[in-house]
Amino acid sequence: MTLTVDTDRLHDDIDATAAFGDIDATEGRGRTVLVGTDANRRAREYLVDRMEAADLDVTVDAVGNVAGTWAPDGVDANAAPVAAGSHLDSVPEGGIFDGPLGVYAALEAVRTMQDAGVTPDRPITVVSFTEEEGQRFADGLLGSSVAVGQRSVEEALALTDDEGTTLAEALEATGFAGEGRLDASQWDAWYELHIEQDTTLEEAGVPVGVVTTITGITHCDVEILGEANHAGATHMHDRTDALAAAAELVLDVETAANDVVDTSSDSAVGTVGSLDVSPNATNVVPGRVEAGIDVRDVEYESMETIVGAVSDTLDRLESERGVETTFERPFDLHPTPMAERLREAAHRAGEAAGLDTMDLHSGAAHDTMHVADVTDASLLFAPSKNGISHNPREWTDWDDCAAATRVLAGAMAETAAAE
Amino acid sequence: MTLTVDTDRLHDDIDATAAFGDIDATEGRGRTVLVGTDANRRAREYLVDRMEAADLDVTVDAVGNVAGTWAPDGVDANAAPVAAGSHLDSVPEGGIFDGPLGVYAALEAVRTMQDAGVTPDRPITVVSFTEEEGQRFADGLLGSSVAVGQRSVEEALALTDDEGTTLAEALEATGFAGEGRLDASQWDAWYELHIEQDTTLEEAGVPVGVVTTITGITHCDVEILGEANHAGATHMHDRTDALAAAAELVLDVETAANDVVDTSSDSAVGTVGSLDVSPNATNVVPGRVEAGIDVRDVEYESMETIVGAVSDTLDRLESERGVETTFERPFDLHPTPMAERLREAAHRAGEAAGLDTMDLHSGAAHDTMHVADVTDASLLFAPSKNGISHNPREWTDWDDCAAATRVLAGAMAETAAAE
Repeated sequence: MTLTVDTDRLHDDIDATAAFGDIDATEGRGRTVLVGTDANRRAREYLVDRMEAADLDVTVDAVGNVAGTWAPDGVDANAAPVAAGSHLDSVPEGGIFDGPLGVYAALEAVRTMQDAGVTPDRPITVVSFTEEEGQRFADGLLGSSVAVGQRSVEEALALTDDEGTTLAEALEATGFAGEGRLDASQWDAWYELHIEQDTTLEEAGVPVGVVTTITGITHCDVEILGEANHAGATHMHDRTDALAAAAELVLDVETAANDVVDTSSDSAVGTVGSLDVSPNATNVVPGRVEAGIDVRDVEYESMETIVGAVSDTLDRLESERGVETTFERPFDLHPTPMAERLREAAHRAGEAAGLDTMDLHSGAAHDTMHVADVTDASLLFAPSKNGISHNPREWTDWDDCAAATRVLAGAMAETAAAE
Repeated sequence: MTLTVDTDRLHDDIDATAAFGDIDATEGRGRTVLVGTDANRRAREYLVDRMEAADLDVTVDAVGNVAGTWAPDGVDANAAPVAAGSHLDSVPEGGIFDGPLGVYAALEAVRTMQDAGVTPDRPITVVSFTEEEGQRFADGLLGSSVAVGQRSVEEALALTDDEGTTLAEALEATGFAGEGRLDASQWDAWYELHIEQDTTLEEAGVPVGVVTTITGITHCDVEILGEANHAGATHMHDRTDALAAAAELVLDVETAANDVVDTSSDSAVGTVGSLDVSPNATNVVPGRVEAGIDVRDVEYESMETIVGAVSDTLDRLESERGVETTFERPFDLHPTPMAERLREAAHRAGEAAGLDTMDLHSGAAHDTMHVADVTDASLLFAPSKNGISHNPREWTDWDDCAAATRVLAGAMAETAAAE
C-alpha cells in the first residue's frame, strides 16, 4: 500500500482556511478566528464543503463539533471508527497551521486512501473540535471536553463570553448549532497531527514527531494582599509591599522548577507568566498582586513538588511579610500517556514512507488529552520553524506538512484495517 | 495679637470646593478635578469670588495660576509680598483636602488678620497653582515650575493631554488663560499648608507639623527584555524570563533601601511601584517587563546609593540571565530644606496660639519644592487620618484644619510684619 499525499491539495485547503479572519501582519501570515464569529462560520462552511466533496457524511453536534465520516462500501458501518482531526479556531492574531493542519491532514489522509483505492475495515471520521484555544467561552479544549463527557452539552451551551453571549447563541448565529453529542468513547482510536510549537524536531532534522506523553498542566492563581501606601511617606519598616512578596514567589517558582529539572525530571517547567500589580503607580507601594502560575511535566509528582513549593512560599510570605494570600488551582490536568499501539503504528508508517520519526513529549495541551481519557489516542507533530506559534510568524514548510500527513495517513490506514 | 480662625468659614469654603467634580464614593468624600475641566473652572471661579469678597486684587497668569493680593492702606505696595497657598486640582477620585486646604487656609489667614485689625507691612498674596497633581498635562508641579522660571510659559502652554489638547486650549476653554507670569522670585517668603498624607502627626497627637526638608525624589524607568516563549514547550534551561529577572530587581531595591535605613538615613525609601509584564499570559514565559522605581530621601547621597544598587543589579542581570536592560531617570529632584526663619516663625506661631508643633520631613513632593529654589519657603502639615490620601477616605478633622490655619496665619502675619 503506497499512500501519496497530494501536497497541493493539502496546501490549498490550509491556504483557503487562512483567508478566513486573516489579519495584516508585518511578518508572516496571521488570522483571528474565535468561535461563533463570521470568520469561524466561513472556516466551518469551507470544511463541510470539502468533507462533502470527499464523500464524507457530515454531522454537527450540539456544541458545534463537526465530524465527517467516510464509510465506503465494504466497511462495517457499525465498527468503531478511527477518528482524526484537530480544530479550526485560533488565538487572536494566531498562525495559520495551529489547528487547520490537523483537520485538513486528516481529511487529506482519507482522500489519499481513496486515491490509493484503500478500503478500510472501519469507518474513518474526520473531526474539528469547537474552541480548542479557549479564547472566547472557556479555558480551552471545549469541544473535546463535551465529546468525552467531561462537560455536559447544557453546561457548555450556557458558557458566556465577556459580553454575556452564550455559546448556544454564538453557534445559532453562525448556523453551527447542531444536535446530539459527538461521542469520542465510541471511537476505536484517535489521531491528531499538530505543529510542535517547539524546536525539538527542527533541531533534530526529523520531519515527524510521535508524542509519548502530553505533559500534565496545572494553573495556580495566586493573590497577594499587602497595603497600598504613599511611596514617599511610608517608612521602609511600615510597609506591606505586595510586589516585593510576589517577587519572592516568582523566584521560588523558578528555583523549584530548576531543582526538579536538575534532580528528577528534565521536562518539568514552572512559570509565573502573568503578574498584575495594583494600583501599579511608580509612587505607590503596591497593595495587591495577582499572579498566574503554569506548572507542567510528564510526571505528575514533579508538578506536585513545584506546586508544593508555591504553597510553602505563600505560607512563609504570610508569616514573614504579613501579607494575606489566596491560592486557587482552577486547572489541573494529569500527564497523559499516548496509546502504545498507535505510536507504533505511526513509527511503522514513517518507516514505510521512508520518513524519519522520533519520540518526544508535548509540553502543550491539545484536545487529544481529553480524547485519551476515553479511547486510545495518539498525537503526531510536524516541525515548527524556530518553535514560534500563536503568532503570524508560525511556520511549517509545506513539505513537512505533507510528510507528517503521509505518516498520519499510513497510521490511520493501518489502524482502520482489520486486525 | 490674637488671630482667631473662623472654623466655619474655612469649612464652608473647603466644603463648597468639594462639590466641584464630586464623585459617588462608597466611603468618604471624593472629587475628580483635572485642570481645564468644568469642575476645575467652577473651583477656580469660586476661589476668585471668595478672594474678591475679601478685598484681594486677583490676577490670573498665562498658565492659569491664580493670585489674590491683599495690600490694605498702610502697606508698602512695592515691598516683596508674603505669599501662601497650594492648589485646587486633584488626582482622579481624590480627596477634598489635598490642595484646597492650603488655598483656603491662606485666604482664611488673610481674613483672620483683617478681622483682628492687623495691618501687615508687606502685601500678602494668596496663590492657587495650576496642576500640582500632574494628572493631565505634565508630571506634576506644573504651575509652580513656571512661577519659578524652571519651565517657560510657552513650553507649558504647548503641553498636551492624551487627546492632544494643549494646556493653552484647556485654559481658554475654561476662561482661565490669563496674562503674564506669576513670579515667585519676587516674593519675600512662601508658606504652604498641606495635609501630611502620613501618620507622624496623628501618632504623636500633634496638630501641626513644620517640615524641615522635603525629600528628594528620583524616578527610574527600567525595561528588561527577555524572550517570550511557550511556558509548556520551553525547557527551564532555555529561558530568558524577563519577569524572573525583574523579581530580582524588586528585591534588590527593597534590600538596598533597607540597608540605607539601617545604616545611614532612616528616612530613605525605595519602591518598585509599577511593573508591567508582556505578554502577561499564564502560559507564556514573560518576554518583557517595564518597572517604575521611586527613590526618596532627605539626603541625596542615600538616593544615589539606592539608584546605584539598581544599576548594579541591571548589570548583573544582563550577565547572569542574558536579558537586555534599559535604564532611564526621567525625574530627579534633590532634597529641599525649608527656610529656617520661616520654620521658626511657624513654631512661634504655634506657641503663641497654645498649639503643639513638631518638626518632620515631607516624603511627598509639593509646589513648595519649586518655590524654595527662588525664595525662602516653608511647608506646614495638618494631620491625615490614618495617613490616607489621594482617596475619598482622605480626612483631616475640621478642628485640625483650623489649628493648622491658626499657625499658618500667625507665621504669615509675623513674616509680613516689619523686621
